[in-house]
Amino acid sequence: MTYSMKRVLTFTACMAAGAMLLSTAPSFANEELEQLSKDPSQWVIPAGNYASQRYSELKQINVKTAANLHPVWTFSTGVLRGHEGGPLVVGDTMYFSSPFPNTVFALDLNQSGKILWKYEPKQDPNVIPVMCCDTVNRGVAYGDGKIFLHQADTTLAALDAKTGKLIWSVKDGNAGVGETGTSAPLVVKDKVLIGISGGEFGIRGRITAYNIKDGSKAWVAYSEGTDSEIKFDPSTTTVMGKPVGTNSSLKTWKGDQYKNGGGATWGWISYDPALNLIYYGSGNPGTWNPTQRPGDNKWSMTVFARDPDTGLAKWVYQMTPHDQWDYDGINEMVLADTPVHGKLTKALVHFDRNGFAFVLNRETGELLEANKFDPAVNWATKIDVATGKPDLVDQYGPGAQGADHNTTNVCPAALGSKDEQPSAYSPVTHMFFVPTNHVCMDYEPFKVSYTAGQPFVGATLSMYPPQGQNNLGNFIAYDVNTGKIAWSDPETFSVWSGALATAGGVVAYGTLDGYLKVVDQKNGKLLYKFKTPSGIIGNINTYTHDKKQYLAVLSGVGGWAGIGMAAGLTEDNAGLGAVGAYKQLSNYTQLGGVLTVFGLSN
Amino acid sequence: MTYSMKRVLTFTACMAAGAMLLSTAPSFANEELEQLSKDPSQWVIPAGNYASQRYSELKQINVKTAANLHPVWTFSTGVLRGHEGGPLVVGDTMYFSSPFPNTVFALDLNQSGKILWKYEPKQDPNVIPVMCCDTVNRGVAYGDGKIFLHQADTTLAALDAKTGKLIWSVKDGNAGVGETGTSAPLVVKDKVLIGISGGEFGIRGRITAYNIKDGSKAWVAYSEGTDSEIKFDPSTTTVMGKPVGTNSSLKTWKGDQYKNGGGATWGWISYDPALNLIYYGSGNPGTWNPTQRPGDNKWSMTVFARDPDTGLAKWVYQMTPHDQWDYDGINEMVLADTPVHGKLTKALVHFDRNGFAFVLNRETGELLEANKFDPAVNWATKIDVATGKPDLVDQYGPGAQGADHNTTNVCPAALGSKDEQPSAYSPVTHMFFVPTNHVCMDYEPFKVSYTAGQPFVGATLSMYPPQGQNNLGNFIAYDVNTGKIAWSDPETFSVWSGALATAGGVVAYGTLDGYLKVVDQKNGKLLYKFKTPSGIIGNINTYTHDKKQYLAVLSGVGGWAGIGMAAGLTEDNAGLGAVGAYKQLSNYTQLGGVLTVFGLSN
Repeated sequence: MTYSMKRVLTFTACMAAGAMLLSTAPSFANEELEQLSKDPSQWVIPAGNYASQRYSELKQINVKTAANLHPVWTFSTGVLRGHEGGPLVVGDTMYFSSPFPNTVFALDLNQSGKILWKYEPKQDPNVIPVMCCDTVNRGVAYGDGKIFLHQADTTLAALDAKTGKLIWSVKDGNAGVGETGTSAPLVVKDKVLIGISGGEFGIRGRITAYNIKDGSKAWVAYSEGTDSEIKFDPSTTTVMGKPVGTNSSLKTWKGDQYKNGGGATWGWISYDPALNLIYYGSGNPGTWNPTQRPGDNKWSMTVFARDPDTGLAKWVYQMTPHDQWDYDGINEMVLADTPVHGKLTKALVHFDRNGFAFVLNRETGELLEANKFDPAVNWATKIDVATGKPDLVDQYGPGAQGADHNTTNVCPAALGSKDEQPSAYSPVTHMFFVPTNHVCMDYEPFKVSYTAGQPFVGATLSMYPPQGQNNLGNFIAYDVNTGKIAWSDPETFSVWSGALATAGGVVAYGTLDGYLKVVDQKNGKLLYKFKTPSGIIGNINTYTHDKKQYLAVLSGVGGWAGIGMAAGLTEDNAGLGAVGAYKQLSNYTQLGGVLTVFGLSN
Repeated sequence: MTYSMKRVLTFTACMAAGAMLLSTAPSFANEELEQLSKDPSQWVIPAGNYASQRYSELKQINVKTAANLHPVWTFSTGVLRGHEGGPLVVGDTMYFSSPFPNTVFALDLNQSGKILWKYEPKQDPNVIPVMCCDTVNRGVAYGDGKIFLHQADTTLAALDAKTGKLIWSVKDGNAGVGETGTSAPLVVKDKVLIGISGGEFGIRGRITAYNIKDGSKAWVAYSEGTDSEIKFDPSTTTVMGKPVGTNSSLKTWKGDQYKNGGGATWGWISYDPALNLIYYGSGNPGTWNPTQRPGDNKWSMTVFARDPDTGLAKWVYQMTPHDQWDYDGINEMVLADTPVHGKLTKALVHFDRNGFAFVLNRETGELLEANKFDPAVNWATKIDVATGKPDLVDQYGPGAQGADHNTTNVCPAALGSKDEQPSAYSPVTHMFFVPTNHVCMDYEPFKVSYTAGQPFVGATLSMYPPQGQNNLGNFIAYDVNTGKIAWSDPETFSVWSGALATAGGVVAYGTLDGYLKVVDQKNGKLLYKFKTPSGIIGNINTYTHDKKQYLAVLSGVGGWAGIGMAAGLTEDNAGLGAVGAYKQLSNYTQLGGVLTVFGLSN
């Protein structure tokens, strides 16, 4: 009998179809999780559900009532730097993690957030300097009565969800060579999956599956390497509908450069139980300097579909071959059965850093559509849907322009038309709601040698809004059926917060200057806003408690966009080029992690 | 024409009696301040008005409407440790200071707290270890178009209220010998007055007046020393209605012990413009160990009434002669024209650390009444109103029990039945609303030698609730007319937040576990509560903006009661004995400074 069985009982009692569940003990944690994730009163998976839709069927908070929202309780985390991710709600308990030192909190919803337990891992603070883009942590996962934490030092810790007691832990990587943990784990069946961060330190990206019972390693699948290392079957793993063939990764790298080839996996993982496939993206190749690493650098910048039991890749698709801009492909993969060109499709939708919204058949990996979701995008004119390749514009290619050339006015900037901040999708209207950046850059490569644990970037950047404009972000609605932006709300700064869409017809997001905003899904009209204590880079979740609907969000400015404030950097081109663009942010908000829970007035 | 003249104009236009003000330029800043302090829409003096009543004539938020309160905007300070004090509101701008590093913020009320300017002084962090009871700062003062900040390193800084630009600064003391700044300055006429902290380091307490125009020193008056140093006229300065005589301080000390005699002045200053007197209290004598310093140790533990122009003392009254418990006398002096034993009296009312509520005639210094405001108080049976002396209970006197004896179950503990957290007073009902501690202690003196910059305490303490009880605090209503507690609301922890009373019949305070509470002045009945991000040790203020009334409070746990959390101390008798008593606090809240502003639903 699991921890949250009480909630499950309540939920299943309401479901005619679920009546049989009680008589069969779930064989895998994810059967419990799958059931729990269908209960809109809870929020048991970082992205809300396995499909990463960040959608809730709750509708007490709706277009008519949103104006009556207000904070109902708040909770300071005691940590100053950037708070990405968001809370889980399992039963009557809320769980979340802080940035380094990655304290995990279990708060009692019956007592306005009284601390039930907290877990403070002991970590070597020397991991901080190798965290490229703030000391963020994107949340914990739940499964099998455990809370899973992916620490900065790459430790995966399994905690008893009731007590916070450490059940097991395993070190996934080596912070000494720049490998760090920032991403939320995902529990699938009897395994917990984690990626790795460190694309700026020449690490080799990989996804690793651990058995939830004891932390033993089940499989590991690299982003680059031999077919065995990347878990490809040359004859059955496909790209654009065809077998990849042998050595699909190795032959796109010069010599053994792939061993420091990046392709980090610090983003989000999705799962389709019916297809039994997980989906995630890999990041930039190492070094950033494209003139030093010829080739397509596969499988950096790639969407992977893998079997969660074995790690075997079913299909792949590389979005940005031979990346010249740090257009990491790690953003969330939204799984949606949604119309594409008028035809209901088992789609995977991915708003990439490179500024294109990729729509693929998630069963086959076939590319269906790829359109710009920010008009500023200029590095490519389009993606050729037949070949899957971008049509490059040499003027904006730092590699094409050659070593030591300062390529100017490239859009988007390295942090992309969108970064890790996840989008939301309404299965009712089939609309996507996307937090975006609206930032361009100058990019000048320089030669760099690999030294373990040292930055392996080889480029100097500076960022700024598109010429003649001054808004650094937009919150947009995007229609994959038409491939067009439906509406766009400009924001002073990048929208670096994960969105939430609900059956109430509203969508919520946070702003870097600290506002929680609730807007109408139909037209983006502002229904409610509240200035939280600090800039928001966290993701908004929703749940009910005692039959009332709440929204919850972490504020606490930081992340890549806020790295100047978070790390105290002042040079314009510091923070991988971001500091200059966001200099005005400190006139709006200060550091400080606070959870704010919103509800409706009685 | 001063900065806030626009507001003054608006205000005076509404006052028939004030019509002439416009034709006469104020000769002193305090005339402007006096006027501004009578405008309930602003909060221009840390204590609300010169009388330190923390009372507002505003009544939109009242017994009937308080349930409709909710946060309207919030602001993280970016600083983790204890946030005492509270914001000022001058015109459309809110001003406040953070704990070390003492950042001053000017926030725009027209833009939900957008930062107009901030001032970040550069201070040597070596001051932190000599701050006994957290790195707190109790707020800034306004006057003459300037914001005055009293920094941890004792620097008094005058900032342009419009721009935050430093106009002048002066170093008041020497952090190298343990002198620090934590208190809010007070502007009186053309001077700004500050005290000094460091009673645990054998400093010599004093009040210093600086000219607001250029920071030049006007006068300084010590707590101990020669008549000249303490600015006493032996023939006109009185105690209990009689001249003090010559060497009133020196003759109560052994040798030159007075030079490290404590009597710090880190609390609040009040001012009566009609009598032209300022009032404040002095703290514990140095060392804490009473067996090492025979005598009454005057004028530690004393209420002072001084002429603000010259510093000359008009009268004094020592509340705890030869202190044996660290019952600092620095708590606020509330000036109230209020019935005492049925007779309307120009009273000074002071809820002292020693657990007695002292009521004096503030013109003459005559003691009218002194009753216990916590039933647990046991170190004295009563204060003899005729002699002004306490009737001691030897069993609870660490000095009486002798060196190295562990005196147990002394009530109150060293942090008093009340510490610096200021009370509120309603001039309508003549009731006082007092945040209190309900804590006892074991106290064991040990021999200590004076070394500059080192702790000069000489006692080991541990604290706990009174026997058989488990609440560490009460919020009480106290009637000085009857000398009795009218009602008492128990709290889990000490109430370490300054109260606010209003014409709406409500009184507001904060709790160490983080709740803002609004209760009915008549009976203490809870009307509204909200869990702010962290424990509250700040003071609640009120103001109007665009004709709507707001409450504002800083949360951010710390201070003496929260020193375990703030400084990361874990030994029960650390933090001058406080850590053990408040150990449970970390199960309720975390560190983090956030301003929360509350308003009424439309």
